[in-house]
Amino acid sequence: MTKKFSAEFLGTFWLVLGGCGSAVLAAGFPDTGIGFVGVSLAFGLTVLTIAYSLGHISGAHLNPAVSFGLWAGGRLPTKELVPYIIAQVLGGLAAAAILYVIATGNGSSIGNFAANGYGEHSPGKYSLTAALITEIVMTFMFLIVILGATDARAPKGFAGLAIGLALTLIHLISIPVTNTSVNPARSISQAVFVGDWALSQLWLFIVAPIIGAIIAGIVYKGLFTKED
Amino acid sequence: MTKKFSAEFLGTFWLVLGGCGSAVLAAGFPDTGIGFVGVSLAFGLTVLTIAYSLGHISGAHLNPAVSFGLWAGGRLPTKELVPYIIAQVLGGLAAAAILYVIATGNGSSIGNFAANGYGEHSPGKYSLTAALITEIVMTFMFLIVILGATDARAPKGFAGLAIGLALTLIHLISIPVTNTSVNPARSISQAVFVGDWALSQLWLFIVAPIIGAIIAGIVYKGLFTKED
Amino acid sequence: MTKKFSAEFLGTFWLVLGGCGSAVLAAGFPDTGIGFVGVSLAFGLTVLTIAYSLGHISGAHLNPAVSFGLWAGGRLPTKELVPYIIAQVLGGLAAAAILYVIATGNGSSIGNFAANGYGEHSPGKYSLTAALITEIVMTFMFLIVILGATDARAPKGFAGLAIGLALTLIHLISIPVTNTSVNPARSISQAVFVGDWALSQLWLFIVAPIIGAIIAGIVYKGLFTKED
Amino acid sequence: MTKKFSAEFLGTFWLVLGGCGSAVLAAGFPDTGIGFVGVSLAFGLTVLTIAYSLGHISGAHLNPAVSFGLWAGGRLPTKELVPYIIAQVLGGLAAAAILYVIATGNGSSIGNFAANGYGEHSPGKYSLTAALITEIVMTFMFLIVILGATDARAPKGFAGLAIGLALTLIHLISIPVTNTSVNPARSISQAVFVGDWALSQLWLFIVAPIIGAIIAGIVYKGLFTKED
Repeated sequence: MTKKFSAEFLGTFWLVLGGCGSAVLAAGFPDTGIGFVGVSLAFGLTVLTIAYSLGHISGAHLNPAVSFGLWAGGRLPTKELVPYIIAQVLGGLAAAAILYVIATGNGSSIGNFAANGYGEHSPGKYSLTAALITEIVMTFMFLIVILGATDARAPKGFAGLAIGLALTLIHLISIPVTNTSVNPARSISQAVFVGDWALSQLWLFIVAPIIGAIIAGIVYKGLFTKED
Repeated sequence: MTKKFSAEFLGTFWLVLGGCGSAVLAAGFPDTGIGFVGVSLAFGLTVLTIAYSLGHISGAHLNPAVSFGLWAGGRLPTKELVPYIIAQVLGGLAAAAILYVIATGNGSSIGNFAANGYGEHSPGKYSLTAALITEIVMTFMFLIVILGATDARAPKGFAGLAIGLALTLIHLISIPVTNTSVNPARSISQAVFVGDWALSQLWLFIVAPIIGAIIAGIVYKGLFTKED
Repeated sequence: MTKKFSAEFLGTFWLVLGGCGSAVLAAGFPDTGIGFVGVSLAFGLTVLTIAYSLGHISGAHLNPAVSFGLWAGGRLPTKELVPYIIAQVLGGLAAAAILYVIATGNGSSIGNFAANGYGEHSPGKYSLTAALITEIVMTFMFLIVILGATDARAPKGFAGLAIGLALTLIHLISIPVTNTSVNPARSISQAVFVGDWALSQLWLFIVAPIIGAIIAGIVYKGLFTKED
Repeated sequence: MTKKFSAEFLGTFWLVLGGCGSAVLAAGFPDTGIGFVGVSLAFGLTVLTIAYSLGHISGAHLNPAVSFGLWAGGRLPTKELVPYIIAQVLGGLAAAAILYVIATGNGSSIGNFAANGYGEHSPGKYSLTAALITEIVMTFMFLIVILGATDARAPKGFAGLAIGLALTLIHLISIPVTNTSVNPARSISQAVFVGDWALSQLWLFIVAPIIGAIIAGIVYKGLFTKED
């Protein structure tokens, strides 16, 4: 378990440092900034790179919703669920702390960091309902891709590519709506540093991804598993 | 057939939600929007992610023109053609309905959604003739890539990558001309919500992709199959 | 040879239609245009998609310089060199003709199409010397990647990915200098439609890529082949 | 050793010509320039393309910090460390010389070339401390990805993809902070041509990447190797 715990900690550290870090440091840089395309790529590449480097240790979940979805789909033993989630949340917080130090290293404040929000805190001012639907559906499809790409019948070796780029795709669609969570560890890490509104809206970015993921686990198992 | 039907439904749902969703929600976001590059990536990644996750269930056509082309190329049994197309059209419509709810969740109207058009409804005001040639040629080449990459002689496992990125490429070229269809299910799903001009121009985005695809099926079978 | 000839024709048709087409139609579209990043991706993806779909037929050279380089490296029989080049040049011209019809379909002129140039016809006004060095070095490295990635000792199946993305990389570097050729068939196809200055500068985009490619063939064979 | 030396020389030549070249020539091109997203892609694709083409010769380190990290992780014999580093530094300098000739080929000065810097020479004016942390952490994670993706337990063949895209990711995050080094050979090559402030800040871009890499070598070996 030490190996798995370390891999999930380091991997989620990288997801938050890379994904949220690119958003905070580089998205809006004048003229040559990376925009939402760059941030979407960055989030996806954190997962892709960890899937191929530490996937053989822990499976590279890097996300409590993913662990819940794999558990619901019968792919993660119940006793591993809590340690995985603890490692992920701690890894995300460690990344946020380092990002805080770097981002304020030119005298800037962190502003809204890369926190997730709805209503007036949605980048495009989308309502709570739109945010809720978006986070549930996006996490649902993320888990369908994860469960399918790691199915024994899928092409060998390509899961890391498909899953990483699925997260890129999800960000390409939904940054304007919620700043895209689909990952409670990522949302917690930013909300803790922003406080205030980010903490009071945090519940949605814990509840909605986990609901979407669990539904996907049940649907995939019911619809697409071998026995029928 | 239930499994295949469900996979085509879910996959086309993802294609329309991801591709058209990114176009509607994120393409023109001020300053950091994803532009046509982001939309092109999004369309391609919907296919790539479903190819690797549900391809082992249904082959991941996600597109009536693809099903027609594979049928013409001798790769899809005639009896499966109609159920595949029904699943694809329904999946696209379901995605458009959800996108409608999200996109209007900040008080915006859907405008032209991500509907396809020619003449004054072409993004770059290209004529009906230009649109017709573009859709036929793009779908023709899309099917050549699909038929070739899934040929038994092609490298194993890479078809999902090549086919997904072929759709990205097609969008990089042709969004200015027709907003890029090459997929009747995608076009129908948007036209139904826009009504009006989108419905009256819809015929082109059903007919042209299917013509291009069927020609490709015949050409690939005639030119490149083993027996000669 | 019919199969190989058809595959090189179709593949180079796709390279020019996709690469030059994205440049002409979509690069400078207001606000959401794809820019040089999109054009670079498009060129690379034409090669990637054809490598995985028709590579098993003809090897997917799609470029007279590539055929020369592989011949110099001992990978292409002398008798196949000329037919390959004829198929490539014809495929490129066919694509340019179709692109001409589409691009003028909204009443625009073709302007400089996607022709290559130096001096006052370089996008960034780079001199003949800078253009010559750029085209030789870029094609040299392109062939090193091609020869290495298709070496029997390289990982199986990944050559199409590496070679396609090498062409993307080359465009990311050198569009400002020459509009990037590294491919005489691509340059000829555009120059024929532009005439005038494009024809009088065409020699450089035939000679320089072939020189770079032949040097690479000799270097790779001499430095990196097994026997030593 | 001649083969390995040549492969590291050519590969690092390509990394600097492609990565720094795209930054100098194309990043800020008016309207259609490639921005930080394009430069990030270019750096990553230099590594990806060389990994698949010359990786079977030398392992494609292309970076003294990588060689140090692999040595600390027990993957590189001590006697190969110095020749690898010499080849890398020479390859980078050769690329910088060619880039100098091309970049000044339209009458421009090289300005700051693609040199790395902190404080007032950081693109976003980040402090020495922020720069130091960034370079150590980024190189640390780069080596974790390299060590993990080339581990015998990782999926075969995908290391070049994961490692190349890890470098893309690192640039997406950190160009605003230090212009991103994580590679002393890349930093030396630019500083030599810029002189002045670039030479006096060069120490950080030699020391920090090597520290981060060596820590990663020790951590990966200690935490994730088989024997436990």
